[in-house]
Amino acid sequence: MHIARVIGDVVATRKDPCYEGVKLLVVQPLTADGAAAGRPLVAVDSVGAGVGEHVFFVRGKEASFPFHPVEVPADAGIVGTISTDWTII
Amino acid sequence: MHIARVIGDVVATRKDPCYEGVKLLVVQPLTADGAAAGRPLVAVDSVGAGVGEHVFFVRGKEASFPFHPVEVPADAGIVGTISTDWTII
Amino acid sequence: MHIARVIGDVVATRKDPCYEGVKLLVVQPLTADGAAAGRPLVAVDSVGAGVGEHVFFVRGKEASFPFHPVEVPADAGIVGTISTDWTII
Amino acid sequence: MHIARVIGDVVATRKDPCYEGVKLLVVQPLTADGAAAGRPLVAVDSVGAGVGEHVFFVRGKEASFPFHPVEVPADAGIVGTISTDWTII
Amino acid sequence: MHIARVIGDVVATRKDPCYEGVKLLVVQPLTADGAAAGRPLVAVDSVGAGVGEHVFFVRGKEASFPFHPVEVPADAGIVGTISTDWTII
Repeated sequence: MHIARVIGDVVATRKDPCYEGVKLLVVQPLTADGAAAGRPLVAVDSVGAGVGEHVFFVRGKEASFPFHPVEVPADAGIVGTISTDWTII
Repeated sequence: MHIARVIGDVVATRKDPCYEGVKLLVVQPLTADGAAAGRPLVAVDSVGAGVGEHVFFVRGKEASFPFHPVEVPADAGIVGTISTDWTII
Repeated sequence: MHIARVIGDVVATRKDPCYEGVKLLVVQPLTADGAAAGRPLVAVDSVGAGVGEHVFFVRGKEASFPFHPVEVPADAGIVGTISTDWTII
Repeated sequence: MHIARVIGDVVATRKDPCYEGVKLLVVQPLTADGAAAGRPLVAVDSVGAGVGEHVFFVRGKEASFPFHPVEVPADAGIVGTISTDWTII
Repeated sequence: MHIARVIGDVVATRKDPCYEGVKLLVVQPLTADGAAAGRPLVAVDSVGAGVGEHVFFVRGKEASFPFHPVEVPADAGIVGTISTDWTII
């Protein structure tokens, strides 16, 4: 999974009906030092994360597991929030 | 999912019969600032996106979900259009 | 899917028996301008592409869809050929 | 699979209930020389790896295989520890 | 699939029992010119490749196909060896 910060939410003007009722957030992947790394992604959220929070998200089909049996076409999903003062040695 | 702009469509001279009736568009992934990032991809479209529009697309096998039960061999699929004035903090 | 040019074919000295009768080509991914981008890949071919042609290929397990019910262990598969004078805006 | 060093563990303030009882570690991918390469990932651990150890981990849905029949939404999983004095020619 | 050179083998001090009897090799991906490109990976081997040989390997769940019905948690698998004097145009 990947460490990221939530930097926004998505206002879709049209979207696949599979996303009905699913929260979509923009996440910026981070390095271990908390610096931005790579481009932001749109992720589905199943843990109630908010803008500004540090999270970890899963990539691939696994992102839709928390929504089963609904088949959400997702390739990135927030699965946890983390404390910002984590310990990396 | 990934934020992108639709920059063209694909005129296939030959293609796998699985794509019959499926619209294929060229999308350019973007950073949060709207700058191009990485190489463009060919994506299937299930929401009626047009050239110039901002979209978000899903990667992997999930790209073919909106076409079920037809098994389209796709690894990128446009699943929503987004307003260009989104808020990133 | 990804835009590429076919730059060679593969002469395997040994290979998994699953590839029996399957054509393998080396493809070079391209940018929208037609420049090489990233390293070349070995792809299975189901549309009869030839060296020098522009193609689009799919990545992941979907690459083996055109060979079903045979389970070819492929992660890249050519699924169409494209005109070299495509329009990108 | 990828060679990495375990550089920390994850203290989740909230997490998907699927991770109940699953150990999460932060791993830093390495080059053949042992240098850091790319950003760190959060991986599930099924072999009892500890901070500072060299490991190899698998990416994708396969990361959850050791936890079957529980469906852990994981895209990176430590599957072995390795001696630090390996031989690369 | 990806072109690579086998640069070593893996001595695991602990490993998931699913790898019992499975050979693990370290492969260095190559460009079309034979130069190293990106970081090395650990791959399962089903064709009897040796250190120094040029191979092509498949990424993703497909890497475990040659070991079916055993479910090896692999994301990279050597599926063929290739002649080093291949022709790229």
